[in-house]
Amino acid sequence: MNFSPLKNDRFLKALLREPTDRTPIWMMRQAGRYLPEYRETRAQAGDFLSLCKNTDLATEVTLQPLRRYPADAAILFSDILTIPDAMGLGLYFETGEGPRFKKTVRDEASIAALPIVDTARDLSYVTDAVTSIRHALSGDVPLIGFSGSPWTLATYMVEGGSSKDFRHTKAMMYQTPELLHALLDKLAESVIDYLNAQIRAGAQAVQIFDSWGGALSHVAYEEFSLAYMTKICRGLIKEFDGQKIPAIVFTKGGGQWLEVMADSGADALGLDWTTPIGRARDRVGHRVALQGNMDPAVLYGSPDIIRAEVKRILDDFGPNPGHIFNLGHGITPFVSPDNVKVFFDAVVDLSQS
Amino acid sequence: MNFSPLKNDRFLKALLREPTDRTPIWMMRQAGRYLPEYRETRAQAGDFLSLCKNTDLATEVTLQPLRRYPADAAILFSDILTIPDAMGLGLYFETGEGPRFKKTVRDEASIAALPIVDTARDLSYVTDAVTSIRHALSGDVPLIGFSGSPWTLATYMVEGGSSKDFRHTKAMMYQTPELLHALLDKLAESVIDYLNAQIRAGAQAVQIFDSWGGALSHVAYEEFSLAYMTKICRGLIKEFDGQKIPAIVFTKGGGQWLEVMADSGADALGLDWTTPIGRARDRVGHRVALQGNMDPAVLYGSPDIIRAEVKRILDDFGPNPGHIFNLGHGITPFVSPDNVKVFFDAVVDLSQS
Repeated sequence: MNFSPLKNDRFLKALLREPTDRTPIWMMRQAGRYLPEYRETRAQAGDFLSLCKNTDLATEVTLQPLRRYPADAAILFSDILTIPDAMGLGLYFETGEGPRFKKTVRDEASIAALPIVDTARDLSYVTDAVTSIRHALSGDVPLIGFSGSPWTLATYMVEGGSSKDFRHTKAMMYQTPELLHALLDKLAESVIDYLNAQIRAGAQAVQIFDSWGGALSHVAYEEFSLAYMTKICRGLIKEFDGQKIPAIVFTKGGGQWLEVMADSGADALGLDWTTPIGRARDRVGHRVALQGNMDPAVLYGSPDIIRAEVKRILDDFGPNPGHIFNLGHGITPFVSPDNVKVFFDAVVDLSQS
Repeated sequence: MNFSPLKNDRFLKALLREPTDRTPIWMMRQAGRYLPEYRETRAQAGDFLSLCKNTDLATEVTLQPLRRYPADAAILFSDILTIPDAMGLGLYFETGEGPRFKKTVRDEASIAALPIVDTARDLSYVTDAVTSIRHALSGDVPLIGFSGSPWTLATYMVEGGSSKDFRHTKAMMYQTPELLHALLDKLAESVIDYLNAQIRAGAQAVQIFDSWGGALSHVAYEEFSLAYMTKICRGLIKEFDGQKIPAIVFTKGGGQWLEVMADSGADALGLDWTTPIGRARDRVGHRVALQGNMDPAVLYGSPDIIRAEVKRILDDFGPNPGHIFNLGHGITPFVSPDNVKVFFDAVVDLSQS
């Protein structure tokens, strides 16, 4: 592919718990609606999915936050629901409603009929975007690929969209667990193919977003979410083009289960803001790196409070290595870009001292 | 008041970690929409708030689940938002939308203008219901009074209703924390008055529902939610009419913070289903009783799976005392009453052996 050599490997080193000069930082949803230039590009593309599918515009929005902030990584601009969409469920977005599917998957026949995704055939717009972004980055920072976790994807497919209580998915879990396992198995196979295709296309690290694993009991989490992320971690390409490809597992609301998550084979675990990062380090920091974990709502705060919260989290983690600074979830649309600058600068300044 | 002597003190004993013949059980939202007789009474009352304010009908729905199931406690039928309503915010319910307020509270002037609730003057319909229910129970089981936590009440008052991200409340927290503290302080004073009035009217235990404490960072939780629940626990009547009045603190999503919660002065902590109850017992079981913690969605499952899940939780907790069986959150409307019977019977049968 002839990519430029990487100039900043702070993020990749920290994921492997190797020393760095300061704590690396990136921000979930850093290419997003809080940026006026993002809103402009998105308006140009039409809707969100068209933006994901337009290689040039997806590349443009991925790079936008890097022009403003000293981020140590870029992340592929895409959606977690590309796989169910490629399986034929018909993803669409209703304004203010979140993602929806035209079809749901609630019985044996509809699960049996689902294809396993072949990324080269079904999702080439994603790998095209990965390669385009990697070239456009010119080696400035590494590029993260990502996927939704099988459990998280399954909830959208069974419910037909977002849900508060996951009623239909959990009913399937507690009535006919073997059906849910069949669905999760197809999703895990698809995610392995999808992430490995992203790695071959230029992704230098990958993250699995398990947005809804935290809605499960610890027992159900291990059986219906973590087991499939573990399967994925085992199936991932570990080294490509002479470089290690670290994997990050992020279960929102999973702070109580870090010990078993650290057995998944992931190099790093993402933490939301409910978990004290110092205690998380005591529990699993000798086995995995930790990524997180400021409440995105702190970015609504005053500059002094943002800096104080950054300092608190850095101090709580303690001396490097093994920490990648991030929010505990995606940045929200109403945050001021100036406050984001305060945030990035605080991490850069305060983690050097 | 001349109440009948209590015939079943299993629940009260377990809250104080005294031995019982079996594990007591009750179910959050046990008087609720899953019961056809509830739906009938509610239709008779008109809407939900009218049902809360009608002493006879509120008494009737409180007793309905006790006619079907071997519950070891009754809980006052009311809403957590009675206090903000009494403060003048104008509570109403839109179908399918959850609770809403006509007024929001987002600035210094509106917070300064809020009265502290005087239960005898402003919320006598609640204490009337307590006394009526206590009489109607004839000592069969004890009656639980309850309130929302200050933090949880504040989120509804600032947002104007339910919220996914608590944007306005958290913006206040990170911009002008002193304002939020002023609001929380008034709420804590009001809750103390409210719960003590319920105790004097006949409540034999009280529970503080902190539905949204789990949305906070651990640091913010201690400062903005737990501190006020601790203040409430300190202000509660500890003994009434010769009986100890135990207090339960339940923060949904608070499983990572049990150690500090056990310092609140509560006799028992509620657990949602994400926390392994055996590990919770190891952490704080020598200081507090534990209430929980089956995922309400298990009630969608087959009878065999419901029984297996009950057994798993009983075994995980280990030998009594100190466990009150419950769901990890309220029962949902679509559950079959027959499955609830399986659930109650399983706890009664399996906790005796």
